[in-house]
Amino acid sequence: MFTGLSAFPLTPIKDDAVDEAGFVRLIERLTSAGVDSITALGSTGSYAYLSPAERARVAELAVTHAKNVPVIVGVGSLRTSDVITNVENAQQAGASGLLVAPMSYQPLTEDEVYGLFRAVTEIASVPVVVYDNPTTTHFTFSTELYGRIATLPAIASIKIPPVDTDLQRARARVEEIRSVIPGDVTIGISGDSAAAIGLLAGCDAWYSVIAGTLPELAQRISRPALNGDLTEALAASQRLTPLWDLFAEHGSLRVVAAIAEHFRLTDRPNLPAPMHGLSAVKLARVRNVLEDLEVTPL
Amino acid sequence: MFTGLSAFPLTPIKDDAVDEAGFVRLIERLTSAGVDSITALGSTGSYAYLSPAERARVAELAVTHAKNVPVIVGVGSLRTSDVITNVENAQQAGASGLLVAPMSYQPLTEDEVYGLFRAVTEIASVPVVVYDNPTTTHFTFSTELYGRIATLPAIASIKIPPVDTDLQRARARVEEIRSVIPGDVTIGISGDSAAAIGLLAGCDAWYSVIAGTLPELAQRISRPALNGDLTEALAASQRLTPLWDLFAEHGSLRVVAAIAEHFRLTDRPNLPAPMHGLSAVKLARVRNVLEDLEVTPL
Repeated sequence: MFTGLSAFPLTPIKDDAVDEAGFVRLIERLTSAGVDSITALGSTGSYAYLSPAERARVAELAVTHAKNVPVIVGVGSLRTSDVITNVENAQQAGASGLLVAPMSYQPLTEDEVYGLFRAVTEIASVPVVVYDNPTTTHFTFSTELYGRIATLPAIASIKIPPVDTDLQRARARVEEIRSVIPGDVTIGISGDSAAAIGLLAGCDAWYSVIAGTLPELAQRISRPALNGDLTEALAASQRLTPLWDLFAEHGSLRVVAAIAEHFRLTDRPNLPAPMHGLSAVKLARVRNVLEDLEVTPL
Repeated sequence: MFTGLSAFPLTPIKDDAVDEAGFVRLIERLTSAGVDSITALGSTGSYAYLSPAERARVAELAVTHAKNVPVIVGVGSLRTSDVITNVENAQQAGASGLLVAPMSYQPLTEDEVYGLFRAVTEIASVPVVVYDNPTTTHFTFSTELYGRIATLPAIASIKIPPVDTDLQRARARVEEIRSVIPGDVTIGISGDSAAAIGLLAGCDAWYSVIAGTLPELAQRISRPALNGDLTEALAASQRLTPLWDLFAEHGSLRVVAAIAEHFRLTDRPNLPAPMHGLSAVKLARVRNVLEDLEVTPL
């Protein structure tokens, strides 16, 4: 389950509440596309902005509509007791895995983050993915901490930030991580523009933002990459450079939110305030990029 | 109200709930010490870890026990609708002011942060303090954004991060900010080690972590500084260098939490998980510093 393409859908927000119909539509598209797993309530799923009750409901909707596709549910929160509540609710909803991000307000120490993962693994009845994305959590894992946490029972995978664009250096980094974690813990790349290199460098999974909205576009990269077809995978990723540039400029969440609106997969706006959707000028640029790339949804 | 010494008390946490008796003890000490204002539920008050209901209760306790000292209440949250709920609850509790931090998970744009402050000022019936602390909120204000926000109705003060240790450069920075904000909006320094320089450089207020636990220690700096006694203020701050070094090493919150435990102002532990109190070795260092400085609580 913690290999291949994991799609991170948006949780569309309408009038300050979860747009359940919109969310179900997104999940059904992912199920049809045949992604390897769905990760609901990742950063792209705006988990950090939702209440425990809203998150329980989203987890339930995701599991119900994902059919046979396994669903991983993001359970991170600033306070450990809220994380525990989210774990219980996600497991109750039928999640196949848990994604745990060390969200932080006060900067956390390595021991504090280790303690958080230990607390989760003590009550987890399904496997756990370690979420490493300093841009959102504001915590930076050391390689040594990966090693300490990965030996906790229930840890199944580590979602790592983008690797070097140079394939040799990327391979060295993946091997370095591999050397400190148990053999059955997988490594998943995140940061979509780094996905092709990450998979070719030996990552087992791609935890993907774009796959949550346009899964077929992600599969054009993940399929050749997972088959070891370096040329085809890099070319497919290279072709999407204008999209990756938009991700870098506006944040991937704002861009996929705009894409979902453009293709009428959700209403507009669909992000939780204080976040805004892109301005009209920026939306026009997103539309132009989609047209140039001849992107159409399934 | 938005001048002088504002003390930021801890919100002690015991068995994953607010230790109300401990919190009231802290508030009563601040009232006795005669601080100019109390800011409850600042970063030092762990607002980011508490539910809206817990925060409403803490606001109520603070106002009730602060007697004639005005209470400013921190209302920041990741989601704008939660901020609005906190504003309503704080006002209901009798807060004299609101502290608004642009907490972020997804990095926010300047327009998004402006929109957040506009939403708050539209419903605020008491004055608002702008909270700028990139270490915790992960948002960096431009000087221009200070200017845009400060012209919103209800904005009364800006809490700025530490200024340069060089007095001339610190003065230039305070004057630069002053030049873009209305004349009735005050500027408050934060980052306790920068307080003396900040006040001498022209700041009107000190939003102080240490004053929340040891107000008399803060007053030894704030009183001469606010009277323009440069030599005495700098000497008083200089004398506390070992304390400022501990703040820099462990974060000011963990250090004041340890001080509160040491003087039995609260139980131990008193921080919300996943945060830990300092280890035994580090606690011993804090105790040594307090003894060397001959610090005793009121």
